[in-house]
Amino acid sequence: MKKALFLWGVIMSFSLGGFAQDIAIYPTNWWVGMKNNSIQLLIRSTNEDFSSDKVLINYPGITVSKTHQFANKRYLAVDITIGPKTLPGDVLIKLAQNSKNWEIKWPVKKRPSGLGTSYAQGVTSVDFIDLIMVDRFSNGDETNDRVAGMLDQSLNRKEMYDRHGGDLQGVINHLDYLQDLGVTALWFTPVMENDMPNRTEHGYSITDHYKIDARYGGSEVYKQLGNDLHKRGMKLIADIVYNHFGSCHFLAQDPPENDWVHQWPEYTQTNFREQPLFDPYATKADKKKMSNGWFDKMMPDINQDNEYMANFIIQNSIWYIEEFGIDGIRLDTYTYNSLEFANKCNQAILDEYPKMSIFGEAMVHGVANQAYFEQNNINTPFKSNLPSVVDFQSLYYGIIPALTQPLGWTEGVNRLYYTLSSDFLSKNPMQKVLLLDNHDEPRFFSVVGEDVEKQKIGYQWLLTCRGIPQMYYGSEVLMKGFKNPDGYLRSDFPGGFKDDEKNAFTGQGLTEAEKANQSLVRTLANYRKQSSALTTGKLMHYIPVDGLYVYFRYDANQTVMCVMNTASTAKAVDFAKYDERTEGFTTARNVVSGEKVSLSDITTIPPMRMWVLELNK
Amino acid sequence: MKKALFLWGVIMSFSLGGFAQDIAIYPTNWWVGMKNNSIQLLIRSTNEDFSSDKVLINYPGITVSKTHQFANKRYLAVDITIGPKTLPGDVLIKLAQNSKNWEIKWPVKKRPSGLGTSYAQGVTSVDFIDLIMVDRFSNGDETNDRVAGMLDQSLNRKEMYDRHGGDLQGVINHLDYLQDLGVTALWFTPVMENDMPNRTEHGYSITDHYKIDARYGGSEVYKQLGNDLHKRGMKLIADIVYNHFGSCHFLAQDPPENDWVHQWPEYTQTNFREQPLFDPYATKADKKKMSNGWFDKMMPDINQDNEYMANFIIQNSIWYIEEFGIDGIRLDTYTYNSLEFANKCNQAILDEYPKMSIFGEAMVHGVANQAYFEQNNINTPFKSNLPSVVDFQSLYYGIIPALTQPLGWTEGVNRLYYTLSSDFLSKNPMQKVLLLDNHDEPRFFSVVGEDVEKQKIGYQWLLTCRGIPQMYYGSEVLMKGFKNPDGYLRSDFPGGFKDDEKNAFTGQGLTEAEKANQSLVRTLANYRKQSSALTTGKLMHYIPVDGLYVYFRYDANQTVMCVMNTASTAKAVDFAKYDERTEGFTTARNVVSGEKVSLSDITTIPPMRMWVLELNK
Repeated sequence: MKKALFLWGVIMSFSLGGFAQDIAIYPTNWWVGMKNNSIQLLIRSTNEDFSSDKVLINYPGITVSKTHQFANKRYLAVDITIGPKTLPGDVLIKLAQNSKNWEIKWPVKKRPSGLGTSYAQGVTSVDFIDLIMVDRFSNGDETNDRVAGMLDQSLNRKEMYDRHGGDLQGVINHLDYLQDLGVTALWFTPVMENDMPNRTEHGYSITDHYKIDARYGGSEVYKQLGNDLHKRGMKLIADIVYNHFGSCHFLAQDPPENDWVHQWPEYTQTNFREQPLFDPYATKADKKKMSNGWFDKMMPDINQDNEYMANFIIQNSIWYIEEFGIDGIRLDTYTYNSLEFANKCNQAILDEYPKMSIFGEAMVHGVANQAYFEQNNINTPFKSNLPSVVDFQSLYYGIIPALTQPLGWTEGVNRLYYTLSSDFLSKNPMQKVLLLDNHDEPRFFSVVGEDVEKQKIGYQWLLTCRGIPQMYYGSEVLMKGFKNPDGYLRSDFPGGFKDDEKNAFTGQGLTEAEKANQSLVRTLANYRKQSSALTTGKLMHYIPVDGLYVYFRYDANQTVMCVMNTASTAKAVDFAKYDERTEGFTTARNVVSGEKVSLSDITTIPPMRMWVLELNK
Repeated sequence: MKKALFLWGVIMSFSLGGFAQDIAIYPTNWWVGMKNNSIQLLIRSTNEDFSSDKVLINYPGITVSKTHQFANKRYLAVDITIGPKTLPGDVLIKLAQNSKNWEIKWPVKKRPSGLGTSYAQGVTSVDFIDLIMVDRFSNGDETNDRVAGMLDQSLNRKEMYDRHGGDLQGVINHLDYLQDLGVTALWFTPVMENDMPNRTEHGYSITDHYKIDARYGGSEVYKQLGNDLHKRGMKLIADIVYNHFGSCHFLAQDPPENDWVHQWPEYTQTNFREQPLFDPYATKADKKKMSNGWFDKMMPDINQDNEYMANFIIQNSIWYIEEFGIDGIRLDTYTYNSLEFANKCNQAILDEYPKMSIFGEAMVHGVANQAYFEQNNINTPFKSNLPSVVDFQSLYYGIIPALTQPLGWTEGVNRLYYTLSSDFLSKNPMQKVLLLDNHDEPRFFSVVGEDVEKQKIGYQWLLTCRGIPQMYYGSEVLMKGFKNPDGYLRSDFPGGFKDDEKNAFTGQGLTEAEKANQSLVRTLANYRKQSSALTTGKLMHYIPVDGLYVYFRYDANQTVMCVMNTASTAKAVDFAKYDERTEGFTTARNVVSGEKVSLSDITTIPPMRMWVLELNK
């Protein structure tokens, strides 16, 4: 059993029997009054001969139903039930093994008050999400830039994959900016502890599921941020990873049994192909490699068929929501999970939090492929219960080709039209998360060749199409960068760090184009906040003609007409042509520029421009 | 009411009441013992004041249930039932109108004998279809090249869109060639009368649904051909058009009511976009234009919501199968129909002929789009009952990109892999009709840049992939041509016409490459005939690696391994890597070249080559 990098979660124990003993229990606590009240405690000691089947809990309302020992005698699993009349307090767990005895305190808490109605509320199409990489956004506390004892001691803003020092206090400091920009929900790449030797900037190599990374400020600052968001009427999204953890996680370094992560004779990476999961002609080998191959050498692939490992992940997901007041969940690397397990975990979360929104990362290629991973209208032996997905289809096969590809029968903006009209495959298209870019995709401004007009169209589309719009920190001020080879898509937010010459928070040093795009996002996102049509209205679109794409968002109270000209020539816009939605209206107001238009005129939209028009009677 | 080009169907009537009178009845006859025995007779006269509600039939077993008169008094519809005990014979239909009387003979026949078990047998994955444009294949009877009284008197083989003189006798003359090539079923573009002024080579502008075009030799030669095919164990496929007819059809020139074809204030073509049919965001206008817009000015769009027009098409489809002994149906322009009507018509055909295979032309873009039109695994308000489709997806997004597109994550041969693995959307993927080219698509040899190796891969794929392979006449000898601007994809089959210097039937004048491809098709198609794996076996494929795509067709008795190297470099083939299907086998025989391979060797496949290997123990 490897012992290198033996790391600890939350540890709360004390010694009895004559020698010091560190013991950790996962979950680190639970709450009374939860629907999920049958908990499997994973207890871990440094003692090689710890495991015991003699477990005694004498706490009113709590019963022990089963214990389980593992090959690795440092571990013990204890199944308990927290009855409905249980009161909060420290539960004393007594263990006896040979001549040794241990007593461990395990807290059962009262559920958070005050947050009862304002967390787990769901992130929906009324929201506008900003995705932030905390290390890259703003350094609000320089004392946590390096944390003694942690493996990654890099701190070098010149190297893209070293640590830069951003933290949660930095986010707290700039909530005014974000709220003013129109953002209503924040999604951070994972902020759980990533105590790995390097590449810790992204957060997906979790080493302790019960700790917020000290370099981000730890759990208390994260809670503070959650509270601050809720006070503002904003929401907090957690990035949860079912699929893997960091190679320095104690369950990788010192697993209870060998089968807690997928083992291969030699290192085997996933094939990154979703097809074998639904392909009627797939080989078992391809399917196994997809699901059980490792995402990366630094990320052991969790064996979710192991019920103890599975329980660990399920309980942690619920614990995390309850502990930090999470409103919505983004599920990482969704397609690589055991989908049966993922269904189970999703269901446990939804049973506890019926309004919770959950959207999966399904970076796949094809509208039917994507639909397979969410609640869909396809009859297949396996049915996903995932409520929605990040909509990579309307990115890859939508807005990007619309603005970068020559027009063809199914190319250019017609590709966007084809992709959106494929929503008949999905149960909940209004819950899909729309994006222009993220921490894995090149910055949209780079994708569109640093064309400011195309960037503006991108944002106008993002904020008016169906679904939940999500932006990526700093793209509002034209941040650019590709994934390869430079990784600049993860550059620092200008103004977030001491001595930054350019400051997007204050506007200092921004170019006119940067200011203009930031202003467009602010204007439209704030307009959207109060627009029933754009947030909850229906979508109707006409078949694009010669690169001119016209769509409507509408309900009984409001109609917004969106005119996207992707052609290289100006196009006449004859409002009468769109009479299924323009009938009864006489004028329109461009919600970005404020300009007014008469619907009885045939107006002309310049090449590569977009209008968002609110129609008036 | 326009009277120009007033044309007649089958006419059988005689005069009474003192003046000559031509009367036609559709269907022109029926049969006793059919499941469909409630028939709606559409009776048409040249007399402006013909329509009558006084109809008398005094024939044992036949009852008149209803008559219907139209605005156009030349027409009358009579609903009759042919009871189970009815005997064959000429039914005398008596009509009285004002002071006039008519008596018309209408035959009720005995169903064809001898063909009872050998028609309507279905075309399945055991078959290999050849699509032939009769005018372009072979001229077997020069007396019918021009037919007096018909509108198109062109006869000029130098003009692609004039008539060339091919006919059904020409096909009959070359059945040995086709059968020897391995073809088991013939599909002709429509051979019903197209008495139009020009562009009559394709056959889709039908002017009489009850007549085989005289320039092809007429009904008797067509029946002869059907009989000859059945005697050889071959099959006959009809190309049926629900969607439109020719503008010179009497129902267009002189309709019973104005609503038998879709009327528009000005000529309105379909938008050719299938999306609005299933798009949750579609406009009514786009949907209407798709379904009710005309395919072409020469092809009025049939209003299938008119029950009389609908009955005319349904009854004709059944009549045609019964009259000519049809085994399978290809449905033209399927996506442009009223899909509710198409379901009804399909069902009527399947009720009468349960083994009939029906495949629709759905020239759409997207695996889900295509699935929408066939029996599928998608839950949508409308469910198609069409058993299968011509698989344009595995053409456009399959074999063409595999051989012509640079390799990418979803490009090149990976696109073919993605498309085939999307079969989870379809109920009957084994009934899809595979193709490399047809009368509307450029010749495959031209698409692959006249690369003979790519052409060979194309045919090897066609004959080993799942589904029903369909070739296009002459592509076996590397015929080439694009659709625009030359239309050469409809060139004449070499050797089919007098004085042809090149003759693909005899081999005279063929290049070595042409002979080699013809030989490959012959060898593989004949191998396929007796191969259970290739015709009815399962498909399994491995994810392509660096352009090397390996798939298997297999059943309990036989395993065929297909290795397609689309890379520009040679690739090692390690049979052990594919052990899910190679295990237990020791050698393989290349069914095209006859070469033998040991499975314990790692062999090398050259760039842009394909092997079809039968595995042996």
